[in-house]
Amino acid sequence: MKRIDSPQNARAKQWKKLLTKKERDKSGLFLVEGFHLVEEALKADVVRELIISESVEVPHGWDTRNAELYLVSEALAKGLSDTEAPQGIFAVCGKPEADILVQDGRFLLLDGVQDPGNLGTMIRTADAAGLTAVILGEGTVDLYNSKVLRSTQGSLFHLPVIKGRLEDWVHKLRDNGVAVYGTALEGAVPFTEAPAGGSFALIMGNEGSGVRPELLGECDRSLYIPIHGAAESLNVAVAAGILTYYLRG
Amino acid sequence: MKRIDSPQNARAKQWKKLLTKKERDKSGLFLVEGFHLVEEALKADVVRELIISESVEVPHGWDTRNAELYLVSEALAKGLSDTEAPQGIFAVCGKPEADILVQDGRFLLLDGVQDPGNLGTMIRTADAAGLTAVILGEGTVDLYNSKVLRSTQGSLFHLPVIKGRLEDWVHKLRDNGVAVYGTALEGAVPFTEAPAGGSFALIMGNEGSGVRPELLGECDRSLYIPIHGAAESLNVAVAAGILTYYLRG
Repeated sequence: MKRIDSPQNARAKQWKKLLTKKERDKSGLFLVEGFHLVEEALKADVVRELIISESVEVPHGWDTRNAELYLVSEALAKGLSDTEAPQGIFAVCGKPEADILVQDGRFLLLDGVQDPGNLGTMIRTADAAGLTAVILGEGTVDLYNSKVLRSTQGSLFHLPVIKGRLEDWVHKLRDNGVAVYGTALEGAVPFTEAPAGGSFALIMGNEGSGVRPELLGECDRSLYIPIHGAAESLNVAVAAGILTYYLRG
Repeated sequence: MKRIDSPQNARAKQWKKLLTKKERDKSGLFLVEGFHLVEEALKADVVRELIISESVEVPHGWDTRNAELYLVSEALAKGLSDTEAPQGIFAVCGKPEADILVQDGRFLLLDGVQDPGNLGTMIRTADAAGLTAVILGEGTVDLYNSKVLRSTQGSLFHLPVIKGRLEDWVHKLRDNGVAVYGTALEGAVPFTEAPAGGSFALIMGNEGSGVRPELLGECDRSLYIPIHGAAESLNVAVAAGILTYYLRG
């Protein structure tokens, strides 16, 4: 185990840089924080470096053989943290790679989702519903943003979550017999008119503007969730949950 | 219209105090912020005082006859705001009162929900699903917290949201023939075994510990949402959405 006390240390500076999307994109690495996320990352075998503050012990039973261990000062740990109550444990992870089998799959496609909590919660929901993969279209908030990571509760390590051009994915999915459903308020049918239980791809859109019309035009059909009260809409992560659990049957 | 420039003005200090639960409980008043929430509050006729910053105009068509108007300095408006991008418009509202008809209703009961975003999102979902009322049990975060208000997107003005002792409500509901469903991971049945389409009351619990066991014991039965993947659980607001839309049929 190596020890680093100064935030000015070159490696410590490199860790800190991983709080920016620019550095994450450049390095292919990202930083997760807290016992639960670090444990999930270890289980997924994507941890390169495990960073623990001097006040913290690695829990018994964790398999850290593939990770380099660093003991750091509390001040350094605090500087890496994005939370109000830092747990003093971090992992530098390599972005997971994924092979995705399109046939007979169940997919969630996200078109410009902006809120980190919404994105993380939808990945968690996709995991719970046993989906094949989540595809993040352009304009969607960065997956490796610390708020997104926290909201996934570790689910990003349980199923492939990849970036992609949604138009290409829609064509690939339809070519492979997967029913592709957009979501929209107009030109759509109540979701309960879609068949439940088969393979499907569901597209959820931006919190304000929804799924782009040009993408909706490429779908098999669009669905909506009936609003029975006076609300204008549902939260996008709640809507994704209702639709995903309905479609998987 | 009255004008107030100094944050030291007695009324301005009173507004500022409404950011605390203590003052809201004492006065029976609460403060909402932003064009959308203020408009919804006006429609619900609960606005006592409308506060606008000098940089802002009241939109055409708003009915402000029952509200006292105050023009304030930008500095004062900023001090009242809880957001990063204040819109310069606020309303002091009286807590809405509600008569609730229990028979044939559909209810969401919340037992110790702690996260303001979750509470607000569930109220928004209850509104969308056309529920009769939302009942907030002890230990649930304060409804008039500014983050809760924002997350409701105004839905708190569309259906009764009241505080109550959940044990009393469960008995009252069951006495009136309403099926009361707890949510739990053990001793529960998959939610799709519950009949859809009738009157119901659904209890969602604390993010960490769920619904209190003693309350579950008073329910007709408890439901769970099957987890098909590796996630440990669903976000409580997502789960409430799936169950509410299923049960209402």
